[in-house]
Amino acid sequence: MADLANKRRFRATVEYDGTDYHGFQIQPGVPTVQRELEAALERVTQGCDEGSPARIVGAGRTDAGVHSVGQVIHFDSLWSRSVAGLQRALNALLPPDIALRDLAMAPAGFHARYSASSRQYVYSVLNQETRSPLRERFACRVPGAVDVAAMNEAASHMVGTHDCAAFGQPPSGSTTVRTVFRAVWTQRGSELRFDVLGNAYLRKMVRRLVGTLLWVGQGKLSSAEFEGILRAGVIGRSAPPAPPCGLCLVRVNY
Amino acid sequence: MADLANKRRFRATVEYDGTDYHGFQIQPGVPTVQRELEAALERVTQGCDEGSPARIVGAGRTDAGVHSVGQVIHFDSLWSRSVAGLQRALNALLPPDIALRDLAMAPAGFHARYSASSRQYVYSVLNQETRSPLRERFACRVPGAVDVAAMNEAASHMVGTHDCAAFGQPPSGSTTVRTVFRAVWTQRGSELRFDVLGNAYLRKMVRRLVGTLLWVGQGKLSSAEFEGILRAGVIGRSAPPAPPCGLCLVRVNY
Repeated sequence: MADLANKRRFRATVEYDGTDYHGFQIQPGVPTVQRELEAALERVTQGCDEGSPARIVGAGRTDAGVHSVGQVIHFDSLWSRSVAGLQRALNALLPPDIALRDLAMAPAGFHARYSASSRQYVYSVLNQETRSPLRERFACRVPGAVDVAAMNEAASHMVGTHDCAAFGQPPSGSTTVRTVFRAVWTQRGSELRFDVLGNAYLRKMVRRLVGTLLWVGQGKLSSAEFEGILRAGVIGRSAPPAPPCGLCLVRVNY
Repeated sequence: MADLANKRRFRATVEYDGTDYHGFQIQPGVPTVQRELEAALERVTQGCDEGSPARIVGAGRTDAGVHSVGQVIHFDSLWSRSVAGLQRALNALLPPDIALRDLAMAPAGFHARYSASSRQYVYSVLNQETRSPLRERFACRVPGAVDVAAMNEAASHMVGTHDCAAFGQPPSGSTTVRTVFRAVWTQRGSELRFDVLGNAYLRKMVRRLVGTLLWVGQGKLSSAEFEGILRAGVIGRSAPPAPPCGLCLVRVNY
């Protein structure tokens, strides 16, 4: 039996194409990113962590179909050989749509979820009439004119600390107050990007926010009406979540 | 029976994610882009083109796994209603990884393959040690240092009219002489792009060329040795074809 008290904590950044996964978090009977990571870790560390199943903690629970270039995870292991060798071994075992971008020993007291101070997501919209197979894997296509300036005016109401109940449900019994540091749309040709930085998010909050801001861009809501929806805090007044394929967890700050 | 002599010729630009297809050209028993296009066309035009199976002609026969944003096709049909309506109907029936970017009546005498004067391909290389799931669907990852200046020096030998037998086989019995107008590598961070414009190509010529130029970049060949391989015209001396995922047919000129 391994001396589990001597396990060391590792920290990694994980990139994944979420198209074929039921989200990050492990669920019975369906492929998830966490399951693939734990399976690979268990195979690589079975010699040293015997009797103690591999457990991965992620900074954010991305939903089914959502992508990541910046998810951060931690795990504990007795692995005592080269850290670079562990990263190479894990990347060799992981499926092509998941990879560790980096791996290092974690600083003392580090926790992927609880130590995180903010999370940056980007939502990509392809604003054109015609389908684009090469771009729609990582973007949601929206035909018709959209008013990006109006979307930015509405998005500015999100910046600050608010009750965000209008845009999502909290983990059971906890608060719906969240702080948004940045919420900005940028446009380059037919590609729109919504860049949002917040301390944390409610379930499907970014996608409901994107859906509702697109209503503003399409003239279905004014910026003042958007603010009214935020203040009212009733989830049924905001738009349904925008499709997951456009969303990517870009960075977690500590 | 429809009056087939009155069929009109249509021209379209086709974008596809080639990952899940055995290339453009129809082959028995496997999914190909042409098969999907013909199946969609047959369903949409069955009322007007009855008794005359839909046939699509493409400008280039892209290989299994190769992508396109600029493949040009033509087909003949008695379709007499709105051209925009035909494009919408085809795009609604085509699978998510294939779409018509545009559709128009073809000019008199137009032939997607025979009227084409040149074809532009781009090969994307991701030059880094670590896997990148979001970028490797449309790029080939090459770890280790590569000398882009040396690759460009070697690539410059390709420009002009040459016997290109070193890099591919011709359709049975025909010439191996091809004209290359442009062959240039550019670099942006870890992303390398090889941009090649030629009148036409031998089978797997662009991918063999990329493989051989990467040998130059990795110091396995000098630029002079690359030129020697071109002049010798023996296919066994060039590199094996680079993986198809990095290749994209970008544009066909007429």
